Amino acid sequence: MITAKARAVDGPDKQFRAAEIKRRDLDLHDVLIEIKFAGICHSDIHTAHGEWGPVNYPLVPGHEIAGIITEVGAEVTKYKVGDRVGVGCMVDSCGDCENCHKGEEQYCLNGNVPTYAGVDKYGEPTQGGYSTHIVVTENFVVRIPDSIELDAAAPLLCAGITTYSPLNHWGAGPGKKVAVVGLGGLGHMAVKIAHAMGAEVTVLSQTLSKKEDGLQFGADHYYATSNPETFEKLAGTFDLIINTVSAKIDISAYLSLLALDGTLVNVGAPAEPLSLNVFSLIGHRRSFAGSMIGGIRETQEMLNFCAEHNIVPNIEVISADQIDEAYKRVLASDVKYRFVIDISTM
Amino acid sequence: MITAKARAVDGPDKQFRAAEIKRRDLDLHDVLIEIKFAGICHSDIHTAHGEWGPVNYPLVPGHEIAGIITEVGAEVTKYKVGDRVGVGCMVDSCGDCENCHKGEEQYCLNGNVPTYAGVDKYGEPTQGGYSTHIVVTENFVVRIPDSIELDAAAPLLCAGITTYSPLNHWGAGPGKKVAVVGLGGLGHMAVKIAHAMGAEVTVLSQTLSKKEDGLQFGADHYYATSNPETFEKLAGTFDLIINTVSAKIDISAYLSLLALDGTLVNVGAPAEPLSLNVFSLIGHRRSFAGSMIGGIRETQEMLNFCAEHNIVPNIEVISADQIDEAYKRVLASDVKYRFVIDISTM
Repeated sequence: MITAKARAVDGPDKQFRAAEIKRRDLDLHDVLIEIKFAGICHSDIHTAHGEWGPVNYPLVPGHEIAGIITEVGAEVTKYKVGDRVGVGCMVDSCGDCENCHKGEEQYCLNGNVPTYAGVDKYGEPTQGGYSTHIVVTENFVVRIPDSIELDAAAPLLCAGITTYSPLNHWGAGPGKKVAVVGLGGLGHMAVKIAHAMGAEVTVLSQTLSKKEDGLQFGADHYYATSNPETFEKLAGTFDLIINTVSAKIDISAYLSLLALDGTLVNVGAPAEPLSLNVFSLIGHRRSFAGSMIGGIRETQEMLNFCAEHNIVPNIEVISADQIDEAYKRVLASDVKYRFVIDISTM
Repeated sequence: MITAKARAVDGPDKQFRAAEIKRRDLDLHDVLIEIKFAGICHSDIHTAHGEWGPVNYPLVPGHEIAGIITEVGAEVTKYKVGDRVGVGCMVDSCGDCENCHKGEEQYCLNGNVPTYAGVDKYGEPTQGGYSTHIVVTENFVVRIPDSIELDAAAPLLCAGITTYSPLNHWGAGPGKKVAVVGLGGLGHMAVKIAHAMGAEVTVLSQTLSKKEDGLQFGADHYYATSNPETFEKLAGTFDLIINTVSAKIDISAYLSLLALDGTLVNVGAPAEPLSLNVFSLIGHRRSFAGSMIGGIRETQEMLNFCAEHNIVPNIEVISADQIDEAYKRVLASDVKYRFVIDISTM
């Protein structure tokens, strides 16, 4: 067993504390990663606070992981010691079902193994990236291109792939009008990626307070959704809308902004059901869809795409002692645009 | 002006009565059609009863029209006297917008002109097919293939195209698993068409009472949705679900029956909003979509497809005096599977 330093939380209302956790000895296809940076995702907060169902505490969150390989299992073929690599939201899947065969392991019919708060094939609870080391099977590890710094790479492993995948799947590109709802950690990546794909990008944010940032990230237009005129002016405009806001919004109003055959994709979901007027779909053959992260092959494709187009998230690097404070600031939307923990401070 | 005999209704609670209506003199591109048969669509009933908003009575419903051309305007090029033709749910559109240019006149950005309860470009109210004659611009007329009898052709103009269009758009065909929710006028056409397209077809009906019919129409499987086991057994199964039921159903439960990248398409809509659990979309990149009839070009394609595959609706021909009774029977789901009015009895 390998001992790693970590930051763990013991209950929904508890603060993070220093902890030691065990990582398994390397199996034939495992790699040991020395984690250098871990991003803070809103999902970490939902899970740590027990908002997505019961959690086996103590919990070590973190699924935006960037580091260096320091050891490889006997039959590892894809990586060697010293490689710069990343791990995202899942660390395994059955490998055997129809969806895994398609390379869409995130939709594994037997359930993928989440990076934390899951149970691995050895029956052990998984613990995430707020720690110095992690052991992962090589098939769930991706290579970080040399041109991307490890701190900036970390958020790509969730925020990057979560937005790249639907933009890619629904064909964002030249001649397509794409709107991004919400300019947070996910939204700012969606804007950068959609712009690099060649789409005409519009940000739909509650206010115009981040307009300057949005335009700098590559948005062509920026509208405040608190202004009802926005919905009149933009009716029937977009081919694709990426909704990065998990809170309950008036989805029928946003659907009305789609053109013929347009799709609105939620990459998050409110806990309670949404109310939806079906006429808003029928009138222009619109679709309301959902998307969850992306497969391993597509995650590698996303990293290569970001390297090629010089895309990195805007980050604020913090020390391990600042996690609780960072959580509060994420909840207050006071982050531009992703916190990344420097694991060397652990 | 041309005088036509018709059956009209004078208010939401009124019975149909014999009436005379005026049809305009033929403009350069108009054709005069002697109507032989008109189908009874559930939309006729909703509109006649004022359930879809205020109506200018007297109203002559009917948008499943089959007849013979008896006169053509001076510049008509597509049709001649004696041609067997049909008219569906719309009789005009702007012809000028992006969607009209794509041949999707049903989604005309300036609003198509519905066959009845609309206002035409002359400012006159439109009246439908429960009448002996109608005048329509040739661009909104389709040709009925010789092998399809006019009585059986009528319901294709709405029930046929409403189901053909989404099956075609979302790629029903060999290797695809398609479910049809509801086995009424629309549902029985969806089963026949999806089967002819080569898909594996499942009917999802409240009970098994029409199972024998469904299998005869071409369904491979038939399940009762009143049995909760149906939803467990079929979870994650279908590539495409066509929901022909306008009533409010538990849409999240039906979404759970879709496989990865599957789409559930509503071809009707309940008046009140639906409640939808977004997690049912995100978990397998599913889509919830809407579709409304089809364009003129696609309507012709559908008629040719039905002729080629010997597809006709199952109909019950009635006389003009039986419309009120037929409405009652439609509301009681007591029709196998479409009423068609013999206009010669008018």
